Amino acid sequence: MSEPVFIMIMNHGRFGEELIASAELIVGTLEQVEAVSLTAGTSIEEYYEKAEALIQASRGKVLILTDLFGGTPCNVAMMLREKYNAKVLCGVNLPMLIEAANLRDTAGCVEELAEAVLDTGRAGVLEPSAEAEEEEDWA
Amino acid sequence: MSEPVFIMIMNHGRFGEELIASAELIVGTLEQVEAVSLTAGTSIEEYYEKAEALIQASRGKVLILTDLFGGTPCNVAMMLREKYNAKVLCGVNLPMLIEAANLRDTAGCVEELAEAVLDTGRAGVLEPSAEAEEEEDWA
Repeated sequence: MSEPVFIMIMNHGRFGEELIASAELIVGTLEQVEAVSLTAGTSIEEYYEKAEALIQASRGKVLILTDLFGGTPCNVAMMLREKYNAKVLCGVNLPMLIEAANLRDTAGCVEELAEAVLDTGRAGVLEPSAEAEEEEDWA
Repeated sequence: MSEPVFIMIMNHGRFGEELIASAELIVGTLEQVEAVSLTAGTSIEEYYEKAEALIQASRGKVLILTDLFGGTPCNVAMMLREKYNAKVLCGVNLPMLIEAANLRDTAGCVEELAEAVLDTGRAGVLEPSAEAEEEEDWA
């Protein structure tokens, strides 16, 4: 992609920060990836401002991965999407973050990146036994 | 369900611990939910033993939510599944954990619970704009 993509995780509590650390155990240090933690006592305004400051400090397009559709992090992400033309996905898991980090330099555009990350996130939710059985069916 | 279900998250790094803390911000304190963190320097044997000790200290059925298909936490979970007849799912996200905690007392059996959690995890990976457009189509 010609423009860099900033990946921002928005979530209740601090698990986004640790999700990044977990991904880094697998794929190495991630640049231009940040989490915005909504901790107890943070107002929506403060949370919005914290996230907006990160977007303003970044360059290029923005992909926001939120924890849960309908929660405050997701609702704030949708407000930021309007203003900054960001892409927003919900239900972030480890496969999504790794896919986003791996593909962002080669995807044609942030829309294409978001679509791939969405597919990877859904496909990553699986029961391994069922997979193994399916593989046997095809063997 | 007649037997209690122990929910165990198995993951690289520490994000499982924080995922539980994030869920607790939303649904309150969770009992019989633990994360097993695979941190740098932990051997597979140590990791297996740590997870097994938690299962042995629990009662009833076990639902294991792992971070990533094919990773060490998932592979160890699949070994424990054989021994303890646990259910294993991959790609854990916040909707899955909340659904598992909410449904475990009312689901008919751990298999039914796992199926509902799987569906919720996949459905929770979404792009909110696409959802909104779908809703408009049905309005």
